[in-house]
Amino acid sequence: MTRGNDPAQYRTLRVALLGAGAVGSQVASLLLRHGDELADRAGARLELAGIAVRDLDAARDVELPRELLTTDAENLILGSDIVIELMGGIEPARTQLLAALNSGADVVTANKALLATHGPELFDAADRVGASVHYEAAAAGAIPIIRPLRDSLAGDRVVRIMGIVNGTTNYILDRMDTEGADFDDVLADAQRLGYAEADPTADVEGYDAAQKAAILASLAFHTTVPLETVHREGITGISAGMIQQASDAGYVIKLLAVCERITVDSVESISVRVYPALVARSHPLASVHGANNAVFVEAEAAGSLMFYGAGAGGVQTASAVLGDVVSAARRHIAGGVGVGESTRANLPIVPIAHVTTRYQITLEVEDQPGVLARVAGILSEGDVSVATVVQSAEGEGTARLVIGTHRATEAALSATVERLAASDVVDRVIAVLRVEGE
Amino acid sequence: MTRGNDPAQYRTLRVALLGAGAVGSQVASLLLRHGDELADRAGARLELAGIAVRDLDAARDVELPRELLTTDAENLILGSDIVIELMGGIEPARTQLLAALNSGADVVTANKALLATHGPELFDAADRVGASVHYEAAAAGAIPIIRPLRDSLAGDRVVRIMGIVNGTTNYILDRMDTEGADFDDVLADAQRLGYAEADPTADVEGYDAAQKAAILASLAFHTTVPLETVHREGITGISAGMIQQASDAGYVIKLLAVCERITVDSVESISVRVYPALVARSHPLASVHGANNAVFVEAEAAGSLMFYGAGAGGVQTASAVLGDVVSAARRHIAGGVGVGESTRANLPIVPIAHVTTRYQITLEVEDQPGVLARVAGILSEGDVSVATVVQSAEGEGTARLVIGTHRATEAALSATVERLAASDVVDRVIAVLRVEGE
Repeated sequence: MTRGNDPAQYRTLRVALLGAGAVGSQVASLLLRHGDELADRAGARLELAGIAVRDLDAARDVELPRELLTTDAENLILGSDIVIELMGGIEPARTQLLAALNSGADVVTANKALLATHGPELFDAADRVGASVHYEAAAAGAIPIIRPLRDSLAGDRVVRIMGIVNGTTNYILDRMDTEGADFDDVLADAQRLGYAEADPTADVEGYDAAQKAAILASLAFHTTVPLETVHREGITGISAGMIQQASDAGYVIKLLAVCERITVDSVESISVRVYPALVARSHPLASVHGANNAVFVEAEAAGSLMFYGAGAGGVQTASAVLGDVVSAARRHIAGGVGVGESTRANLPIVPIAHVTTRYQITLEVEDQPGVLARVAGILSEGDVSVATVVQSAEGEGTARLVIGTHRATEAALSATVERLAASDVVDRVIAVLRVEGE
Repeated sequence: MTRGNDPAQYRTLRVALLGAGAVGSQVASLLLRHGDELADRAGARLELAGIAVRDLDAARDVELPRELLTTDAENLILGSDIVIELMGGIEPARTQLLAALNSGADVVTANKALLATHGPELFDAADRVGASVHYEAAAAGAIPIIRPLRDSLAGDRVVRIMGIVNGTTNYILDRMDTEGADFDDVLADAQRLGYAEADPTADVEGYDAAQKAAILASLAFHTTVPLETVHREGITGISAGMIQQASDAGYVIKLLAVCERITVDSVESISVRVYPALVARSHPLASVHGANNAVFVEAEAAGSLMFYGAGAGGVQTASAVLGDVVSAARRHIAGGVGVGESTRANLPIVPIAHVTTRYQITLEVEDQPGVLARVAGILSEGDVSVATVVQSAEGEGTARLVIGTHRATEAALSATVERLAASDVVDRVIAVLRVEGE
């Protein structure tokens, strides 16, 4: 019952760590502190052979033994059984991981940018030597989502994933929702508190979420999803008024990564997109507060599943990295080749114009008879069917129309919104938001 | 990038299915319908060699090819690469799975009763031949929880699991909460709707949840947890009044499986228990409605995680079973031995007397001066510290006291409640409930 668990028989595996930032220093610390426990779980002693850093004297979140630090990553990688990459960025991470894989080492990485852009190259290199690439920490921080998608749901068909995969934007939107605050104010506060970077672009413009969406969609649909096929919109255009109006209608605004299996012209295809969307307050995703993440998965047989937890944080992410290290070690001990990436399905990825969702369109219109009929006429001509309309006076001869539509394609919707904007009865298109999860 | 995914090179693996009930018939149907897709994911063709049933002519949820049915399980198992057991019950499931493992086959089972009572015997048999036992469907239906605990959190230390792992009782408690209905009425309705069995004992008395708790705790704490060490209480004593009172205090009552790492007399130990408990409405577990399940996991590094989904249902559970079948097939193709069960930690399991939680005690008392002081005195003498007291008139010279305590041991609490019950100022102990998740 304790196969491979006889300490006297433990092999020692050499582990190289590249990077000692917020996550890396925690990984090193846990490897050093919990060595015996990890050895029992992995069936092998995990020897931290060294930690490659750029600057030997940089300040660290956790104090690390000076003798483990090195600036010579190339030499450290040679002769390692497992290489953990936590530097981030494309280079030198890509070159060093390829060197590790080519030498037969298993690789663990949390580098979503690298995976979303050079994933296939890494997986190919791993395949050639029978090694494996582990990246649980790259998709949703500490939340175990890779193994559920790759293994637990391997006998099922994923229909849709809706993920809150960026903690910074969820923190901002959640505070805007609970406090009625403006985007700029909450962002400034989030930066002060360390929830947002000094340059928040990667988070608030949805780049980080788009990388994660590409990784999740690749796994869920067994298809290589290049980052440039992911439609991406950020949350900088979301105002306190839009949040209030969403709330009045029973919704909350969340930045969602949506990965969806759709049929276009009778061809089974997928759509991958990131944008702020309206989510009904009763939906489990609406209850994801603060900087937490959650991934909601709909599968044909399993039905609806949700995975919830911390999406970021040094020690939280370190937990996911160490789980991967143990898996890699078990593979070394058990023998056999790693589970390759399955891209056999290779479904076509369609542009957003083909996607159908429901929409909420908010217009400022002239407050005079016949306006609603004109607006309804334009919608109807554009093949956009109206589900609900709420009209309210704005004062000064203008009114506000909040229109909830039935499902329509993005192509139909955006053409129709253009015609509405050009119409003489519409003063202004205040907002157009998709509704997801219904 | 598609290692093992060249259809021309696919090996064929023989799959034997034992049982064709609600789950088994769905598994057979999915294996037959999605053969090509499963082959691509597993890297092997999965040939359903036969389905062992007791009665060839029984009615099935799904129509199955007559020629696959057999009453000769022994013969079917011989020569199979993967054996799926979905009969339930201890025998003949135990004997047949041991025969399968001894013949070198990998085993997939959803049989929680068998695992909770004879798990070690099965794991030992698997270890001797390097095969593996997969049981994702045994702990929380379609919710992927086994791989997250065994693999994703393998580098972390689980501190506590709180699971809603029985759909029937969650359905009943949820309806009592939302409708103010009585237990007996909702149970009768649940039986009519198929949410509860004609004999609901296994569900409402917590036996089903206790089996799942034993499985989850074994995995989380790397310790063999015999079923008889799991403290178990059901929900038959929960009245509409108790639910209402919980609600007034900001709580909902859930049947929880709690698996906890605790230190008793400086010895690291674990406690595994199933009982109805008060959960704050703001806790993620409070939002688990209907027959859904959820497992809330607290780990040292990862923090709080929650896994949510359908806990039962034929096709939902079949999804988890098929995920295991694909994993078993990949192991056959990749070579190497399966991941054994890790029981290296083997922590002592302490009886419930050592557990500390907060409590809510509801008393019917004489409505006269000095009663509160007497009650407070008894609590204080018993080392049970009071956090909140709400007194309300019951009429007829009696009052109701609802006492929220600070953390106390079960031993101290139950001795104190006995003294309260024996006191001349207390007419009746109406309810004693633990508070979890705070």
